[in-house]
Amino acid sequence: MKKDLKGTCIIGQSGGPTSVINTSLLGAVKAGLASSSITRVLGALNGIEGVLKDELIDFDKEDPNELELLRQTPASVLGSCRYKLKDYNVDDKDYRRILEIFRKYDVRYFFYNGGNDSMDTCNKISKFMIENNYECRVMGIPKTIDNDLAGTDHCPGYGSAAKYIAQICTELALDARVYPNGPVVILEVMGRNAGWMAASSALAGIHGVGPDLIFLPEVPFDLEDFIEQTKEIYAKKKTAVIVVSEGIRDKDGIYISEYGSDLAKQKDSFGHAQMGGLAAYLGNALKRATGLKVRPIELSLLQRCASHSVSKADSDEAYMAGYEAVRYATSGGTDKMAGYKVVREKDYYRCSIEFVPLEQVGGVEVHFPKEWMNEAQTGVKKEFIDYCLPLIQGELDYVKEDGMNKFAKLKKVKA
Amino acid sequence: MKKDLKGTCIIGQSGGPTSVINTSLLGAVKAGLASSSITRVLGALNGIEGVLKDELIDFDKEDPNELELLRQTPASVLGSCRYKLKDYNVDDKDYRRILEIFRKYDVRYFFYNGGNDSMDTCNKISKFMIENNYECRVMGIPKTIDNDLAGTDHCPGYGSAAKYIAQICTELALDARVYPNGPVVILEVMGRNAGWMAASSALAGIHGVGPDLIFLPEVPFDLEDFIEQTKEIYAKKKTAVIVVSEGIRDKDGIYISEYGSDLAKQKDSFGHAQMGGLAAYLGNALKRATGLKVRPIELSLLQRCASHSVSKADSDEAYMAGYEAVRYATSGGTDKMAGYKVVREKDYYRCSIEFVPLEQVGGVEVHFPKEWMNEAQTGVKKEFIDYCLPLIQGELDYVKEDGMNKFAKLKKVKA
Repeated sequence: MKKDLKGTCIIGQSGGPTSVINTSLLGAVKAGLASSSITRVLGALNGIEGVLKDELIDFDKEDPNELELLRQTPASVLGSCRYKLKDYNVDDKDYRRILEIFRKYDVRYFFYNGGNDSMDTCNKISKFMIENNYECRVMGIPKTIDNDLAGTDHCPGYGSAAKYIAQICTELALDARVYPNGPVVILEVMGRNAGWMAASSALAGIHGVGPDLIFLPEVPFDLEDFIEQTKEIYAKKKTAVIVVSEGIRDKDGIYISEYGSDLAKQKDSFGHAQMGGLAAYLGNALKRATGLKVRPIELSLLQRCASHSVSKADSDEAYMAGYEAVRYATSGGTDKMAGYKVVREKDYYRCSIEFVPLEQVGGVEVHFPKEWMNEAQTGVKKEFIDYCLPLIQGELDYVKEDGMNKFAKLKKVKA
Repeated sequence: MKKDLKGTCIIGQSGGPTSVINTSLLGAVKAGLASSSITRVLGALNGIEGVLKDELIDFDKEDPNELELLRQTPASVLGSCRYKLKDYNVDDKDYRRILEIFRKYDVRYFFYNGGNDSMDTCNKISKFMIENNYECRVMGIPKTIDNDLAGTDHCPGYGSAAKYIAQICTELALDARVYPNGPVVILEVMGRNAGWMAASSALAGIHGVGPDLIFLPEVPFDLEDFIEQTKEIYAKKKTAVIVVSEGIRDKDGIYISEYGSDLAKQKDSFGHAQMGGLAAYLGNALKRATGLKVRPIELSLLQRCASHSVSKADSDEAYMAGYEAVRYATSGGTDKMAGYKVVREKDYYRCSIEFVPLEQVGGVEVHFPKEWMNEAQTGVKKEFIDYCLPLIQGELDYVKEDGMNKFAKLKKVKA
């Protein structure tokens, strides 16, 4: 592979946003604009769909000051998609279209920022280009609040989500103590299969005010146990804060959230039945069993878009991942994801980039390690705190406008 | 009334917390500790209940550095109550007990931080003391995220809640635009009778990304209109952000949230029915009528305890209200609430304290002015933006610990 491959690069964002997904984009854009190998830096609107539809924008036309604001701009500024490419041995229509677009713009670099599906997409595109003798370097930039990607110590976006959840959890726990008999707060956080998000709430507890019970999808959930454990805590503390992963399942693998939706379907035939989410379901079950006052809270989109609560460590690392992915490609590398390699020692933390083959990442989900849970499996051990704490350090120095965070308004000039 | 009344002061917190209720407490405590008229500064645990139960703590025993953290400590640090004193002409048992406690500690100053019920409590206590020839100066310090108190331009706590809601609303609106066909986000905020909280979401819109429709309790809510208006917006934007006050009512005055709870009761007899809140109810109604994807989000406790998002303006004013209430009392004043008087001119804002008779505040609710709503009554006019914007300016310089905001841990030594 020659080192001096010259041509256009395309950068795309995929899957659900994180608070720092635009920071990785900024890193990649800045590296692209600085590189002598990259002739044009384009962005794909709505991920791979933007390539297929020839909806590309030119980053050279953007105001550099506005681009800097990407560090504090919530959601995916290029838009996202959940489009899944087929196996090209079965149907190569999309791939031929991508090749057509790559030829049209002389695209020699493709950077895709997403989760494990996106790494799979990258891998497929790269292989197709090789088989069709089109030289193009393809790199994955990781991103997910779920922290479930293989080949990396942790994922860009997780630290900020963890910081937000931990902060909120302290605030809720203190609020729940205001009245002599407080409510049971049930906080539902994202995480369909992996408990990293729910576990991060435990950081709130290191100063004495945090969640009392944490339920992860890795541990079979039992409704009766949950009620008993909550009652015990309430008897002592006159309040309780419970954190649940949206993906908790019973011993038969059935999602607890489906207990609720099955009932919703059932009631729909009566006319107007409606459902809250998992937190509401558990709250009602607890209320019926104990008579306690319950406050079910579903964090919903807030946990992935709360860019007012970005971790500086996460932001800096996300920028580095974007930037280094481009540097690696322009130095001749391809087919890798820019993962994190970390040194953690007492009071010392260093994160650098390690390039991981895409095929080791696509389709793999990394679960929360059982050995980091406490004996009752309703909380975490110090090992997790030591792992997670460096990821939530520091704050952004936000640019403000009228008392609110200023967000980037890109011109999005068509390429 | 003599100017040099010497004795103990008691400070109490009442009702739901705000992000700056502890900052008013700090202001009052610091003024009390600095005053030569006040011999001891005591705090009542859980408001007036702490007085009745003789559960008082001594602020002189607290570490001054820890006290400073009150500016960034969520929830009511002394605890709160919703205890309502009876009319003493009907039953004066509680009042006699309060007098007994006041005598025990030589209490000559009583400061109560709360909403309009609390101002009523202050007023009753003051009158009882006068009738019983016990000299005691009684002052109210306002507080409520609802912004519905009479006798003040705005309420301590409202600015921070407004700042949080506006910030979140921008983040949610940007997140909702990530996919080509976004969800309808329905954000439920507090405000049983007054729409100030919901209205504050409009601040998000001044930079182009905010709520599309805002429904206040002051305007009769029509479910069909809501569905039609949302459909129209969605047709144009492929997403919509709707903000609703928890207290919206139909033309017959029935709370829309009760539509849901009536159904809940009805379904309960079948066994397991459960309900989300108002946002979930509206979301389901919209989904049934239009098939659109909906994301109902109930901000719940977050909007009153999100002390990670304090407005500096609100914080400074809340401190001033607490401090000035004490200064006024030690100068001979009594039976007043420390309200805000504001000068607003183009690019100029000044807030000072105006003392308002307690009887003008107790039991009165100030509604959102109809003349500040747009013609369709689904949004606000510039007059409101000009009113509210100064209240959300500036940020605290937070003291951090392990990447999270440090909160005050008081010793709470019994008096």
